[in-house]
Amino acid sequence: MNFRTMRRASIVSIGNEILTGQTVDTNAAYLCEKLFTIGIPVVSSYTVGDEVERIVRALKSATDDAEIVLATGGLGPTDDDLTRQGFARFLGSELQLQDELLHKMQSFFGRRNLQMSEKNKVQAYLPAGTEAVVNELGTAPGIMAERCDKLIFAMPGVPSEMRKMFEKSVLPKLKYFTAGQFIIVRKLRCFGTGESNIAEMLGNLMERGRNPLINCTASNGIITLHIIATAENNEKAQKIVEKEEKILRERLGDLVYGVGEQTLAEVVGRKLAKEKKTIATAESCTGGILAKLLTDIPGASEYFTQGWVTYSNSAKISELGVQKKLIDKYGSVSEQAACAMASGARKKAGTDFAIGITGIAGPTGATEHKPVGLVYICVESDSASETRRFVFPQDRYSIRLRAAKTALNMIRLKL
Amino acid sequence: MNFRTMRRASIVSIGNEILTGQTVDTNAAYLCEKLFTIGIPVVSSYTVGDEVERIVRALKSATDDAEIVLATGGLGPTDDDLTRQGFARFLGSELQLQDELLHKMQSFFGRRNLQMSEKNKVQAYLPAGTEAVVNELGTAPGIMAERCDKLIFAMPGVPSEMRKMFEKSVLPKLKYFTAGQFIIVRKLRCFGTGESNIAEMLGNLMERGRNPLINCTASNGIITLHIIATAENNEKAQKIVEKEEKILRERLGDLVYGVGEQTLAEVVGRKLAKEKKTIATAESCTGGILAKLLTDIPGASEYFTQGWVTYSNSAKISELGVQKKLIDKYGSVSEQAACAMASGARKKAGTDFAIGITGIAGPTGATEHKPVGLVYICVESDSASETRRFVFPQDRYSIRLRAAKTALNMIRLKL
Repeated sequence: MNFRTMRRASIVSIGNEILTGQTVDTNAAYLCEKLFTIGIPVVSSYTVGDEVERIVRALKSATDDAEIVLATGGLGPTDDDLTRQGFARFLGSELQLQDELLHKMQSFFGRRNLQMSEKNKVQAYLPAGTEAVVNELGTAPGIMAERCDKLIFAMPGVPSEMRKMFEKSVLPKLKYFTAGQFIIVRKLRCFGTGESNIAEMLGNLMERGRNPLINCTASNGIITLHIIATAENNEKAQKIVEKEEKILRERLGDLVYGVGEQTLAEVVGRKLAKEKKTIATAESCTGGILAKLLTDIPGASEYFTQGWVTYSNSAKISELGVQKKLIDKYGSVSEQAACAMASGARKKAGTDFAIGITGIAGPTGATEHKPVGLVYICVESDSASETRRFVFPQDRYSIRLRAAKTALNMIRLKL
Repeated sequence: MNFRTMRRASIVSIGNEILTGQTVDTNAAYLCEKLFTIGIPVVSSYTVGDEVERIVRALKSATDDAEIVLATGGLGPTDDDLTRQGFARFLGSELQLQDELLHKMQSFFGRRNLQMSEKNKVQAYLPAGTEAVVNELGTAPGIMAERCDKLIFAMPGVPSEMRKMFEKSVLPKLKYFTAGQFIIVRKLRCFGTGESNIAEMLGNLMERGRNPLINCTASNGIITLHIIATAENNEKAQKIVEKEEKILRERLGDLVYGVGEQTLAEVVGRKLAKEKKTIATAESCTGGILAKLLTDIPGASEYFTQGWVTYSNSAKISELGVQKKLIDKYGSVSEQAACAMASGARKKAGTDFAIGITGIAGPTGATEHKPVGLVYICVESDSASETRRFVFPQDRYSIRLRAAKTALNMIRLKL
């Protein structure tokens, strides 16, 4: 595993649109994260506009810094796309028409019944001595160059094309380049506790230098564990990952909600669909976010039939049958109100499950005993009703989102 | 106005968390956009980890590239914060304790009844010959250095602290540095047509080299026009902006919905509150997004009382009183259904306005005559009902968000 200390990467992002602030450079962040999770540290990142001289200087600096250089952007067909020229100048070679590439591009257009424009032809040129990298989603091939034991790639700037190319073609070559080692990464998604708590539960499993290596990232309450296994072949790496996943799942129990890119709403939706169960929502402080998250998933109509956003007390009373005297006694932000909202929603919608959420998202509305961030969430099914009290930190945005995700997690644990 | 061609900027982002992909570098994008709108082009941007040598190299490259260098990150109190050391090494000077800064920091902690830790003391050190830049939101002061006619700043990495410091302290200094010229930027926010259409309506007003300069950016249907006025004093710049704003508003009419950072929901909310009107929502394909946008705004309970997410046909019938025979005849995605949803919602909620939205967000659900992206939106008030048909482009995410924003825009135009 010494490649980890030996192989470093540098990123070069090319494009005027980044330097004018019109585009946030998510490509660099994506590549940094991908490389980080496979144990290749990114040591520097450069952004330059579409100018040959600046591209050349950035490539020089990047190859000074690291053994692997990943450039993105500037491979389009228009006159301001100068990455090919920049690469040729940097390598001290000439651009040459690649007949095979031209042929591929012509059939790319042919399959779509489109005429290839003369402009596109420049995309079939590569610096002499470099190799094309397949682009499954667009016309611009990538470029791979080796120079003085360094590996340099150019990929398109369109994020979807870049990601596909990176995963399909660049990542395998990096593995090949890193001494024939196979690296497999699996992501376990967790919800329900903090990063430090998870780190404590994992203990020595998170030690640096282990194989597999466990990296941990956190975003909006979702904790992601990256299991990174290295072995001399794919099968062995796979086995290491599987064994480790089992250990992690044993330690973390139902804190693990999914794998890969799964969201809570997706996992909940899949479970509901599988068990042919339905759900309804009754929201106050989250104002529709829970319904939005559920319906973000294509096909949600299979299990989500309806929701209410009962922002005012009178709406809670008239739409969900919450009793006025209950609100008078306990307030609309109370365990009792959350419970009555869920109950009313389930009865009216005729669903298997219903969720009621009420709370204080702030910045105003707090009282002596009810702080900003206080949220009650109730999940009701035909067999039981569970209400939990939370005080979520931070601001209105975070409180609302965290409350909706927590509701999804509560329903997940019921399924 | 020759400073525009004379003054260029380069950005240096410092922090391991960016290079591991755990943080997307929104600071660089923010600075790029801010500088772009005041006519200072950013020609390069560097990201390095928390290492003195790499910080020094990045500062060297950045000062080679440009006259203004803006660095962010690495000013915290912990051992991995090395920007102060990097600046000192780059400038060939020593770090010196600034008594005045130490005193300020002590009173910062004092006001909060906190004990200042020994660690924080490093933040009172500055490279000799540099100036501190005020940080209103945190303990770490920024650094300003002049060297060989170049102006170099270090700002904190925490976005809120960085933005405040940039706007309050750095921007005015940039203006001073750029030959005593005053630059004022005003943003006009537009919704309801595309970027190219707006460019056509503005015609020669968008010519380069004009004063004021008009820049245009687009994001999720919101078109932002930046009016950038330059003059020898603040008053004159202000006058230029005001005159231009008047001209733009005349040309664009009600396409302009707001200024600065205003969102559509904020503008609609403010108008509803002012006119003491109330609103209810009835959503199908947007699944709660409209209610979410309305309730994103603190104090929304003043005008938003309730909403329905009637995802299934039976929910449209039972909750909103849409007639079954109407759905059988026209389908649930129809002008008639949108209208009946709005009407039912307004009647039940007893509000002044109600919005009904129904459509096909995809990826499935399209029919021969009803493509993915087809959305009907109805706004009903006591005096009128208006239903419009749209076919929004792109994917489920964009279609849903665009539909909800378009609904907000329709209600805005009624107010």
